[in-house]
Amino acid sequence: MAPGLLNETNTSADMPTKKIDPSSQELAAAEKESHDIVLKTFRLLISDLCQQFKGGHPGPTGHTCIFQYAFLHLTGYKDMTFDQLKSYHSERYDALCPGHPEIEHEGIEVTTGPLGQGIANAVGLAMASKHLAATFNRPGFDVVSNHTWCMIGDACLQEGVGLEAISLAGHFKLNNLTVIYDNNQITCDGSVDMTNTENINEKMKSCGWTVLDVEDGCYDIAGIVHALEQSKQSSDKPTFINVRTVIGLGSKVQGTAVAHGAAFGADDVAAQKRAYGFDPDEHFVGEGYVREWEGLVARYAEAHPELAERFRKRVKGDLTGWEQLIPEKFPEKATASRASSGLVFNPVAKGLDSFMVGTADLSPSVNMIWPGKVDFQNPDLRTSCGIDGNYGGRYIHYGVREHAMCAISNGLAAFSPGTIVPVTSSFFMFYLYAAPAVRMGALMRLQVIHHATHDSIGMGEDGPTHQPIELAALYRAMPNLLYIRPGDSEETAGAWAAALSARETPTIVSTSRHALPQLAHTRRDGVQRGAYVLQENDAAALTLIGVGAELSHAVGVAQKLKDEHGVECRVVSFPCQRLFEAQPLAYRRATLRRHQGVPAVVLEPYAPNGWERYADAAACVTRFGHSLPGTAAYRYFGFDVETLTGRVLGYLEKVRGDEMLRREFVEI
Amino acid sequence: MAPGLLNETNTSADMPTKKIDPSSQELAAAEKESHDIVLKTFRLLISDLCQQFKGGHPGPTGHTCIFQYAFLHLTGYKDMTFDQLKSYHSERYDALCPGHPEIEHEGIEVTTGPLGQGIANAVGLAMASKHLAATFNRPGFDVVSNHTWCMIGDACLQEGVGLEAISLAGHFKLNNLTVIYDNNQITCDGSVDMTNTENINEKMKSCGWTVLDVEDGCYDIAGIVHALEQSKQSSDKPTFINVRTVIGLGSKVQGTAVAHGAAFGADDVAAQKRAYGFDPDEHFVGEGYVREWEGLVARYAEAHPELAERFRKRVKGDLTGWEQLIPEKFPEKATASRASSGLVFNPVAKGLDSFMVGTADLSPSVNMIWPGKVDFQNPDLRTSCGIDGNYGGRYIHYGVREHAMCAISNGLAAFSPGTIVPVTSSFFMFYLYAAPAVRMGALMRLQVIHHATHDSIGMGEDGPTHQPIELAALYRAMPNLLYIRPGDSEETAGAWAAALSARETPTIVSTSRHALPQLAHTRRDGVQRGAYVLQENDAAALTLIGVGAELSHAVGVAQKLKDEHGVECRVVSFPCQRLFEAQPLAYRRATLRRHQGVPAVVLEPYAPNGWERYADAAACVTRFGHSLPGTAAYRYFGFDVETLTGRVLGYLEKVRGDEMLRREFVEI
Repeated sequence: MAPGLLNETNTSADMPTKKIDPSSQELAAAEKESHDIVLKTFRLLISDLCQQFKGGHPGPTGHTCIFQYAFLHLTGYKDMTFDQLKSYHSERYDALCPGHPEIEHEGIEVTTGPLGQGIANAVGLAMASKHLAATFNRPGFDVVSNHTWCMIGDACLQEGVGLEAISLAGHFKLNNLTVIYDNNQITCDGSVDMTNTENINEKMKSCGWTVLDVEDGCYDIAGIVHALEQSKQSSDKPTFINVRTVIGLGSKVQGTAVAHGAAFGADDVAAQKRAYGFDPDEHFVGEGYVREWEGLVARYAEAHPELAERFRKRVKGDLTGWEQLIPEKFPEKATASRASSGLVFNPVAKGLDSFMVGTADLSPSVNMIWPGKVDFQNPDLRTSCGIDGNYGGRYIHYGVREHAMCAISNGLAAFSPGTIVPVTSSFFMFYLYAAPAVRMGALMRLQVIHHATHDSIGMGEDGPTHQPIELAALYRAMPNLLYIRPGDSEETAGAWAAALSARETPTIVSTSRHALPQLAHTRRDGVQRGAYVLQENDAAALTLIGVGAELSHAVGVAQKLKDEHGVECRVVSFPCQRLFEAQPLAYRRATLRRHQGVPAVVLEPYAPNGWERYADAAACVTRFGHSLPGTAAYRYFGFDVETLTGRVLGYLEKVRGDEMLRREFVEI
Repeated sequence: MAPGLLNETNTSADMPTKKIDPSSQELAAAEKESHDIVLKTFRLLISDLCQQFKGGHPGPTGHTCIFQYAFLHLTGYKDMTFDQLKSYHSERYDALCPGHPEIEHEGIEVTTGPLGQGIANAVGLAMASKHLAATFNRPGFDVVSNHTWCMIGDACLQEGVGLEAISLAGHFKLNNLTVIYDNNQITCDGSVDMTNTENINEKMKSCGWTVLDVEDGCYDIAGIVHALEQSKQSSDKPTFINVRTVIGLGSKVQGTAVAHGAAFGADDVAAQKRAYGFDPDEHFVGEGYVREWEGLVARYAEAHPELAERFRKRVKGDLTGWEQLIPEKFPEKATASRASSGLVFNPVAKGLDSFMVGTADLSPSVNMIWPGKVDFQNPDLRTSCGIDGNYGGRYIHYGVREHAMCAISNGLAAFSPGTIVPVTSSFFMFYLYAAPAVRMGALMRLQVIHHATHDSIGMGEDGPTHQPIELAALYRAMPNLLYIRPGDSEETAGAWAAALSARETPTIVSTSRHALPQLAHTRRDGVQRGAYVLQENDAAALTLIGVGAELSHAVGVAQKLKDEHGVECRVVSFPCQRLFEAQPLAYRRATLRRHQGVPAVVLEPYAPNGWERYADAAACVTRFGHSLPGTAAYRYFGFDVETLTGRVLGYLEKVRGDEMLRREFVEI
C-alpha cells in the first residue's frame, strides 16, 4: 500500500498549462471516449500483470507502484520495456518492477512501502523545491519550480508519521504539494469505518490544507484533472484532493478488501477483457520537458553565471571544502561530545549551503545552531517568540516529530540526490521513534546525518525511558548505516568526517550529554577506520576496548590496573563497528591482537549484542536503566573506574579457573 | 515532558458528585481564596524541589510527574513521604520520584516519558475500563466505572503515536476519557507556533472529540473543575479540555522555554516565596474511596456470585487452563508458522476471556481470529462492511496504527495488571514502527504478546522495505523481552507457551508467511529453554544452528553434508536467545558443545549481530533484502539447501587454512 510519488522535475511556472473546464460539453464529448479507453487499458494491464504470477496488488489503494511502472512505460522511460513491466512479481533478479517502488530505478523518486513514509517523503521533496527555488530562482528564471504530487490511501492517513508530516506541511504552507487521496474506504480488514470515522476533510483543513473533492473518482477524469490544475494554482496552502474511488473496479471483488492484495483470477480477468480488448502500444514522450528545462538552465547560466555555477555545484552534490572547515584543535577542557559536535559541524553548516539542519524541538540541547543561521519557514509567518525565517533558511524546526523529521529528511535528500544533505538532531533514544525512516534512508542510500545526543546511561535523571540500553544494537546491525560513538572532541571531528565522506550512507553521530575529558592520542583518522589502538603495550595481558562516552573509563581502568595491580593493558578506541569491518583483516588483527592470545574486554553500558565478535568479555548493561544524576548512574551500574577495575580483575581471575571461558563470551 | 495519568480507580457512576457552577458568586467568594493558597503551595513546592539539586523540570508543560508526586504526597500515599518527595533528582538509589514516573511505584499507573506514549496508554486504560464494565457490571453494580484523566502538553499533540491514539479514541467513542491539554504554547525551541499552527480544537472535533475551553488555566479553578465535571457527563465522546496556561507562572522566566527544563535559580525561588510562604502539611485522604469500592464488590459477590468469582479471578490475573487449550498434535502437512500461531492460540483466546487480541489491519494475514470472536466496538456503530461489535468484544481492529496498537495495549495491560492480557499482530517489520511502545511494555514489565508475522526474507515480493534484516538484533538486545522464532507448528506451541508463562515480560512470537515442513524431533519444551539439540551426533564435526523459518534448512544441510560429503553434523534448534541465557551453564554447554571443540555455524538470513556468542560462523545477510517470490529470495541470497551446503563446506575448508579463524567469527 505504498503511496506513489510523482515529482515533476521540470515544469517552470511560466510554462503554458492546458486549462480544462469540467462543465464544458465539448470536453465531455471530445475526451470522454479516449479517457474511457485509457482507463480500461490501465485496469486490464494491471489485472494481467497481477494474474500472470497469481500475485501482486491490483487494488490501487496502495502498492501504487504498479500504476507508476505502467505510467513510466507509457511515457517512454527507455528501460521500462513491456518485458520489464511483465517482470512484476516474477523471479527475474534484474526486475525493475519490484513489489514496492525502489529509488534505484529510473523514474522512481523514492522507495516506499512502509505506510506513511511516502507522504512524509513528499513533504520533504516539496520543502526541497521551495528551498532551492528561494535560493536559486531569479526573475524570469524559475530553474526550480517542481510541484510534488503524492498518491496515498486510507492507511497513510492513519499512520502517525503521515499525520506528523501533514501537520508540518500545513504549517510550512507548502503550496507546491498536492496529495491525492484514493479514498476507496477499504483496508485489509474490511471497510475503513471499522477503525476510522473521523471527518478527514475537516481534519485536513484544521491542519492548514485546502481540500478539494472529487465525488466520482472512477470515471470523472475531467473532475480529477480540474482538481489537479486547481491545486497547482494554490498560493499559500498544500492541497488535499479527496477522490472517492471503488477498489478493484470492474472485477467481481470490486469494493472489497480482497481486491487489494490478490490477483483477480484468470476467469475474472478474461471476463473483464471480453467487453473490450486492445493493444497498449502507444507511447507518449516526456523528453521534451527535460530539454526545455535544460534550455532554461543554459539561459540562466548566461544571465547569472556565478549563481548558475553554485547551482551546478549543488546539483552535482559537490561538498568540496568541508575538510578545511573542521577545526584542527579543540579547547583542552572537558567538553560534552554533543557540544563538540557543534564545534565541529557548525562551521561546516555555516560555510556550505548544501546542509539543511533540523531538530525535533531540541535546539538548546543538540548544539546544531551556527552563528547567523536562518530558519526555514514560510516568510509570512510571525511567531510569538519572534524567531521567524524564510524558505531560503536552512535550519528546520520540525516540532516534536522525530519520525517525520527523518522521513522528511529522506525526501530532502532524495530531491536530486546530493543537492541537499539533511542533518537531523534529537536525543539518541528518540531515534527509536524515527527508526523506520532512518532505515528507509539507509535502504535508499541517501546521505542523511543524524546527530543523536544524550546517549549512554550518563544522560541521567530522565531515567530508563531515555537511557538507550539496546538501541545501539539496532543501528550497528542496520545495513548501510554508520553508527559512531566518539570519545572526545578530536574523535567527534572524526565521526563527522566519516559522516560527511559517506555519500551514499546515512550516519548516526552518537554523543554524550555530559562533559568528557580530552584524551591523549585520540585521532580523527582512527575514527574513520572504526577502531584503532589508543595505547599500545607489547607486554599487555589484556586489551581494554573503550567506546564513546566511556572511552575515558577504559583509559582510567588501564592506568589503575597497571598502577595498583601490576596488570599491563593496552587500550583500543572503538567508535564504529561498521567502519572497522571495512578494514583489511591485517589491520583488524593488529588492532585487536586477539590472534596473539591477548583477551579483550569491552566497556560499554549497553546491551553487548555484537561485541562478542571483537571481545571476550564485556562490562555491559542488560537491564533497563535507572533515573539518577549521570555520575550516580555510572556508579549505580558499576561503571565508575574503581568498580570497573575490580570487575576486570574478577574476569581475569575467573578465566584462570575455567579455561573454557576464553572460548565463551562473558558478561562481567 | 511526560503526560501524567490520573486513572480514578474507584468512582461508581451513582456516587454523588459535587456540582459546581463557575458563575456562582458564592463559589467565587468561598473557594477562591483557598484555591489561591493551594496553587501557590504547589508552585512553590515544585520550585523548591527543582532548586534543591539545581535540576529537574519546573514547567508543568511536561515532566508532569513532579505534580503527580506532590499530589500523591498530599492525598496521603503512605510511601510518598515528604523526604521521598525531596528525593526528586537526588542521588538516592531508592527514590520514588524519578525524573519520569515509573509504574513500580504506588499510585503511578504507567511509566511515561517518551512523548505521545502516555496519551496512547490513557486510551488503553479507558478501553480496558469500557471492556471490563461491559463484561462485569450489572444493574446497580458498576464494579468497573473508571474515568481516565490524562494531562498532556503541546508535544503529545505533535507525536504520531498520540495522533493515532486520538483518532482511535474518537472512533471508539470513549466517553470515559478526558484529556487535559496544558496549552502553554511553549516547547524547548520557543513558541509552539514555530512548528505548529493548526487549529487543534477543530482537529480534535474532526476526530470525534468534544472540546471544552478554559481560557484562564492559571487562576480559573472553577472553570477547570466545571470542565472536568462536564467531561465526566459525556455520553458518547471523549473530551479534550484546552486549558490555556502560562509556563513557569510567577517566575522570572514565565512564558518562556527556559521554564521547562531548568530550575528557576535560588534567587528567583526566594523572590517567589517572599510574597507568601506556608506549611504544606495538610493531608487529604483517598482511602475512603477504596473502602467504598470494596463494599460494592462485596455486595456484588452476594448478588452475582459466579460473575464475581470470574471477576476476582481476572483481577488476580489467573490464566489457569491455557495449557490444556493448546493442541497436543498438529496436522502433518507443511504449515506457515503464522497459521500455526492460529492453531495454537485461537483456542486459548476463545477459551479464556483475559485475552484482548488486536491487529493493525492485517486480520487476513495474521490468523488471530477465533471462531465466534466479537469485535471491540462502540455498540452503536454500523460499519459499511457489516462487521460490528460492542465494548464486551475482545478482538480489536486498530486500523493501520501499529505504534498506537502497542502503546494502547500497554494501557490495557497496565489497567489492574493481569486482568487483561493484550495480544497485538502485524508484519514483523512493522514492529519497528511500534518499537518505542514495545519497549515501554518491557520496561513496565507488562505481559503483552506480539504476533509478528512475515518474518525473514521468505516474506518475498514486498521486498527490502518489508524484509526485517536487522530487526531481530534490536529485539534480542531489548531487556525484559522474549523474541522467539519457532521452526514449525510444534515449536510454535512452545513459543506461545513461553509467552503465556512470562507474566511480567512481553514476547514477540515471530512467524513465517510461507509454509514450513513439520520437522522430526521438534519439542515445545525445548523452545521454552531457548535452544535444544534437535539431532545429536557423537561423531559430529560441526554443529548447525537452525532458527525459525530456516530450521528446516539446517536439517537439510546436515543431511546433505553427511550423504554427499561424509561430514557428520549435529543440529541445534535455537528459537530464543534470552530464554537460552537463562539456562544453567551446563545445559548451555551440552547444547552447543563448543567446549568440546565442535565449531558451530548458524543459518539465519538476518544481520548476525549477537550470534557471535553462540556460533563460530554464520550464513547471514548484512545488506537489505530483495523483492522476489519467497523461494526465489532464498535462492538469491544463497539460502537454499544446496548453496548453504557449499558455503558451510567452504568455511570448514577455510578454517583448515587459517586456524586463527576458529577464534574469529566468520560470515560465510
